[in-house]
This record gives sequence, structure tokens and C-alpha cells, in this order.
Amino acid sequence: MNIILLSGGSGKRLWPLSNDIRSKQFIKIFRTEDGGYESMLQRMYRMLREVDPSAEITVATSKAQISTIHSQIGDSVGISMEPARRDTFPAIALAALYLRDIRKVPEDEPVVVCPVDPYVDLTYFRAFPELVRIIEDGGANLALMGMEPTYPSSKYGYILPETRDRVSRVLSFREKPDEETAAGYIARGALWNGGVFGFRISYVAGIAGELLGTPDYDTLFARYSDVRRISFDYAVAEQEKSIKVLRFSGTWKDLGTWNTLTEAMTENIGEAVMNEHCENVHVINELNVPVLCMGLKDVVVAASPEGILVSDKGESSYIKPFVDAMDTRVMFAEKSWGSFRIIDIQEDSLTILVTLNPGHGMNYHSHVYRDEVWTVVSGTGRVILDGEESGVAAGDVVRMPAGVKHTVIADTALRIVEVQIGREINVTDKVKYPMP
Amino acid sequence: MNIILLSGGSGKRLWPLSNDIRSKQFIKIFRTEDGGYESMLQRMYRMLREVDPSAEITVATSKAQISTIHSQIGDSVGISMEPARRDTFPAIALAALYLRDIRKVPEDEPVVVCPVDPYVDLTYFRAFPELVRIIEDGGANLALMGMEPTYPSSKYGYILPETRDRVSRVLSFREKPDEETAAGYIARGALWNGGVFGFRISYVAGIAGELLGTPDYDTLFARYSDVRRISFDYAVAEQEKSIKVLRFSGTWKDLGTWNTLTEAMTENIGEAVMNEHCENVHVINELNVPVLCMGLKDVVVAASPEGILVSDKGESSYIKPFVDAMDTRVMFAEKSWGSFRIIDIQEDSLTILVTLNPGHGMNYHSHVYRDEVWTVVSGTGRVILDGEESGVAAGDVVRMPAGVKHTVIADTALRIVEVQIGREINVTDKVKYPMP
Repeated sequence: MNIILLSGGSGKRLWPLSNDIRSKQFIKIFRTEDGGYESMLQRMYRMLREVDPSAEITVATSKAQISTIHSQIGDSVGISMEPARRDTFPAIALAALYLRDIRKVPEDEPVVVCPVDPYVDLTYFRAFPELVRIIEDGGANLALMGMEPTYPSSKYGYILPETRDRVSRVLSFREKPDEETAAGYIARGALWNGGVFGFRISYVAGIAGELLGTPDYDTLFARYSDVRRISFDYAVAEQEKSIKVLRFSGTWKDLGTWNTLTEAMTENIGEAVMNEHCENVHVINELNVPVLCMGLKDVVVAASPEGILVSDKGESSYIKPFVDAMDTRVMFAEKSWGSFRIIDIQEDSLTILVTLNPGHGMNYHSHVYRDEVWTVVSGTGRVILDGEESGVAAGDVVRMPAGVKHTVIADTALRIVEVQIGREINVTDKVKYPMP
Repeated sequence: MNIILLSGGSGKRLWPLSNDIRSKQFIKIFRTEDGGYESMLQRMYRMLREVDPSAEITVATSKAQISTIHSQIGDSVGISMEPARRDTFPAIALAALYLRDIRKVPEDEPVVVCPVDPYVDLTYFRAFPELVRIIEDGGANLALMGMEPTYPSSKYGYILPETRDRVSRVLSFREKPDEETAAGYIARGALWNGGVFGFRISYVAGIAGELLGTPDYDTLFARYSDVRRISFDYAVAEQEKSIKVLRFSGTWKDLGTWNTLTEAMTENIGEAVMNEHCENVHVINELNVPVLCMGLKDVVVAASPEGILVSDKGESSYIKPFVDAMDTRVMFAEKSWGSFRIIDIQEDSLTILVTLNPGHGMNYHSHVYRDEVWTVVSGTGRVILDGEESGVAAGDVVRMPAGVKHTVIADTALRIVEVQIGREINVTDKVKYPMP
């Protein structure tokens, strides 16, 4: 099976655990059988592999996420990198052309597209081969999954099927309605549009040629920033006549807000203490100090190096404008090469804990306005300063005055406290060089 | 006027802002006219000086607090250091003998003792000279302040006066009663015991001689750890026949819990954002990241490097057992020489931000089990390593492998990131030496 996973969004609605480079799908929030935690992405990937170990999986995403994706699910997935944010049709078209032109998948093969962030179980992925079969049988150009609604939600688009059969032709689509209208749709047998689509690569490639004027991957990639912003629903689903919907009644939850996310949590995460008068309280604590809750009801507490949210669960859906208004310096990140965390900010200095995975290193670079000092606290590696290489281990100190080209490569897992000193400390003060 | 300020308590009930070395009286929580914040101690000291600029003020306290006291109110107060915790009578006796034997205050002079932590205004301090006058007039051996009760509280001891006059003889004392009993006391004109006492130094010195067998300061100081634990109320007030109470009806609040403390706060402290559905919510945020509150009612949020409290205000009074059960590593402290804050903890390392005030320095010391690295991020000073002195400034790095004797003295305000590296990092690994 060919799968395109759509991994987008900056996920401000799950602040402070999501930030500009860590979207909600990367937060490790679900308990695994071995006692650890996995993210939405990891959970989805694990289940996809369980249903089809040999699936050709491509993640459609932005440059900022690539490193985190590899870090979380490894290198056995293809990545279709979107050079800009351009809504779902260009993203899906680019990924389809990537499959055809880069991964050399025959263009008459079906592909299933699904978003990375719903909370689902194996039954969801077991429905994918059915979508593939609908396409292969020639019964439709486009096959969708329609989720059985559980209440008249105004958050979803609706699909009106011709019949109440498990697979039915689609009569029409309806944009997000108000609750009353939604109730009317549901009475007529309407389904939620879950954003899961099956089609042949050639089908979407053809539409991309028509709508965007881009015959192949390289052309679309090169022109990506200039193509129309247009959703897949609008560009494809709502125009197509030969279209079928597969009715799905298994677990499917949108975990886009703290309210819905905590419903899927079985226990608190991180150090949390509650007194006996707490009721329906969830704590997600990524700091290394305790959170103590007393006498709270229907509250979520989320603490990370970026900030602390304390919210009534119902109100947590309205977080976005408040987060937009905040100064959102990225305080931590998990990357394929390791991770960093800002541990102290002063007027003239910034202190960062940098962790490098074995075999990984930084870019070779220098700074114009700041000095840097590394203190190695654990592990071993090699430092290159203005072309001179030397080994480092715990206790070693490396000074890099402004202008000195530098990098470090980890031999074993390497942990470094980096102190940046200067009046002008910002991420743009970085000159990169090829490795010497 | 001679004043003894009792500054005790570990203040766990205001966790996470109070800890083993920062008691509640040191938390800077009250807005000052110049836009800054002051602590209970600073607020009380400022008002005392306003009422009597030449007062002889002695703070009775433990060793752990001395440095913070000097840092907050300077060096123009005497300090009576209690070598151990031994309840209020030994503490007051030691301070009285300190006034007589060390500060050479004539022993027939009156002294007023008051706790450092009630929330009061100038009228409170203006009542002190009245207590002094009662003693000087020879009308009583002991004069107390009796607070007009505002409700039948079970938290306070009660004083039953003979009359309802402003100054009255005392009939008897009552231990903390239940609310019903308290209501009965109040009907009979009883007052709360506010722990404010006036007496001649010779009076308490005499009782100390009788009860503790200690004729002077040096003897009591030397034997302090072995003397009886006994409260001033029990040892003195409840035994004394010649005793008067001064009725006080001005502002007097016990700020011992988050619930009562937030009543005295006019605004949030630190970075805090609230949506329009928050009601009676207070945030005290000592972290440098924002706290966002949504849809909360009657809640206090307190965040510090030691942890995060989110509590219904009423329930916040019951915090102590939960804090007792926590691992309470001191994560930050303010000292007379400056301050420190632990900014990162790893298995093999500890990173600390150290700030030294101009003219101050560390002890000259070495470590057996850990290496240390200093990176100076701002200011200037002098480092001594194994007897060798050299100047340091922002950007300089100093390495101290285990065994190397070291200290640093600040010339201007000096800020240093200290990285400690080793398997055995703890405060006991410190060998002190005389300054070279």
C-alpha cells in the first residue's frame, strides 16, 4: 500500500507543549506497553506498520519538521518536503508526484492520504485496503472515509451519502455547519469528513497539471511558493462525480485541543501530585520540578520550558489568540541529531544544554557578534576549531570567541553546556561553512 | 525603642515560593511605590523605621536566614542567631540577653517583641510606643497587643481582658478554641493574641535565669541546643499576674497561607495572562516563561524554580503534608553575597547561575569529587586558584579540577555560569580554607 501522511500545523492550540517546531503530533503523550511514551506520529506509524509492514509511507511536511520526524520514526519513510505552506491540495499533489517521480511508484497505483493527528486504533488502518480496493475495482476516481458522527458537531465538514450502505456513492459535501444544521444532516445519514482519501497517483497528477500547471515533481517543487492556496476538498472532492464513501464507525477522535487530548490520556505525565479533592484533572509536566494540584475540577495543567497553561478543560479550546499574542521563543527542540534546551536567559548571555546523538554533529559555523563556551558534561567527541581537530570528553572546556569557525561531532552520546555571551544573541548570527 | 523581630519558620505552607532557606517573610510579593516589590520583612522594617528612625532593631533568627536578612534590609540591624530551633521563649530570652550583653542596652529599658510575618500598616507600629509606656509607667510587668477579632477563628489564641477599655488588665488566656467556643469568647470581649509583647529586658532575663538556668547571653548561646522547648505564652504570659493588654483594631492579617496571602496582593506577580472567564485568580510567577490561565475561579497559581502549585484558594491551607512528602532540593537562594539558581540537573552534572554582589566573594574552597568550570557572563572580578590571583571579565573561562582551591571576588556585579561535573555532586563535598 502507498500511504501519504499529512504532517502539518504549528499546533499552538496545545501550547505550551507544542511550539513552532514541535507540532502536536510530536508530543510524547501516549503510554506504550513497555512503560514509555509515544507521540501521535509514532503511534500512527507503529499501527500502519502493523497493518502493512511493507507499506510505502511518505510524510508530507515542512522543512522544520523533517528532523523531528526522522528522530521519532526513523529513516524508512519518504519525505515530501513542502517549501512553503500552501493548503492541502498542493501538499497532496506534491507528495503524489514525489511517489511517482522520486520513489518510482507506477502512477496507476492507488495511494491513501491521511492526516497524522487523529486518535485512532487498528480498525482505522484496516479500512485503508478497502479504500484501495474501491479504486482498483474502478468503482470510483476518489474514495473517502466517512466517520459515523456521534453528535451534531460544528467542527467538521459533512459528507452526504446516497445510501446507508457501508460503501455508497457520495451525493454532496457540506462545509462546517452550525449545530442545528448538523443535526439535520445527521438525520439524513451524513458522515464526518475525516480527511482520508484514496485515488490513483495519475488522477491527482492530472488535476495538478490542470490546476497548478505543473507536470512533474521538480516543476511543482520549484514553483511551490507561487502556486494557489487551495484545499483538496475544494479542488478535488467537491468537483468529482465518480466518488464513493466508506462508512467508518471505529475509534476516531480529533485531539486538537487540550480538552479532547486529555480524554485520550490514561494518566498524568511527569511529576504531579494531586490531593483527594481533584476531579477530572490532567497534568502534563515536562519540567523537572513537581506540580501540586489541590481542589481543582475539570482542569488541565500543562508545563514545559515554554510556559505553563492552567485551564478549565472546556475553555482550553480558545487558547490560540492568547498564544499568538505571546512572545514565542523556542525554548527546546528534539532533532534527528539530538536536542537542545535553553536553561537560562540573561541580558548578555544565553545558556543552552545541547545533546548530540552518537555520530551526529553540528554544522561547521561561526558567529559575528557572540562568543561561545562549551563545557562537556558527559560523553566523548571531536571538536574542530578553525580547521584544527581535537578530542573532547567530560570536563573539557572549549572557547570560541566571535569569528572562530567551530563544530563538534559526537562519538558517544555527548552532552554540552553552551554559554553564549554578547549583546546581540540571536539565531540569525550564524555563518555556515562546508566541513573542513 | 528596642525591637525584637522574630523571624522563624521554614514556610512550607507557601511552597513553592518558600523553601528551607527562603521563608515566607522573604518573598517579594508586595508592590512598592517605585514600581518594585518588597518582602514582608522589608515592608515591616521600612514601616518600623518610619515610626522610629533610631529604633534599636534585633532580628531573632536561625543561621540559615542571616544572609538573606542582611541582603534584604542591610546591616543596621542586630542579629540574635539561634543555634537551634527551641520555640519562642528561648528565642526571645536569647535576643533580650543579646540586647543587654552584646548591644549593651541597659537592662531596665523596655523592649517590644513582634513576629515578622503579619500583614500590617503603620497604625500597628504606632501602637508599640504605647506598649513601652505601659511598662515604663510601672502599670504591668508585661504588655500585650490584643487584636479585635473579626470572626470566631480557631486559628488564634484568645486574651480575656477585664474591661473593654483601650488598655485593660488581662483576666486570662485561652488556647486555640473551636469556633463555637471562640464565638463565646468574643461575646465576652476577648481579643486575638497577636504575639506582640512589651517588657523590660531585666524581666525576661530573670525568667530565663529561673527556667533555663542561664544568667547571660554567652551561657544561653552555648547551651541553646539543650534548653527546654517552651513557648513565651506558656512560660511567661500565662504565669504573669501583672499584665495588661492594648486593644488594637487596625489592619492585621496573618498571611501564612496562599489563601490569606493573595488577599493582600493587588495584582499578579510575574508573567501572567488570564482570559476574561477567570475570577478571583492570583498568579505568582517567578519563572521567566508565561503562565496562561483560562476559565478558573478562586485559584492560586504559584510557580518557582522549585515547583508549581495550582490550588483552589480554600484548599491551599492544607498544603503542608504534600510539601513535606516532596523531595525538596533547594533550587535557588538569595544571600548577602548575591544569589544562586540551579538551572540544569543531569546525572553527571549540575549547572548553576551564580550572581556575586560587588565586593563579595565565595569562601576559598576545593572539592574532592567534582570538577568545576566557570564561564563569566557579565561583570569583572578576581579569581584565586591555588593561591594564584588573576582578573576575570565576561567571556573568561576558569577550570577547577577536583582538588584545586578556588574562589572568586566580584569587583563589579559578577554573573557566572558554574558547571559542576562528577558522579558525586553534593553540598557536603567542600573543603574550606582561610583566604590566601
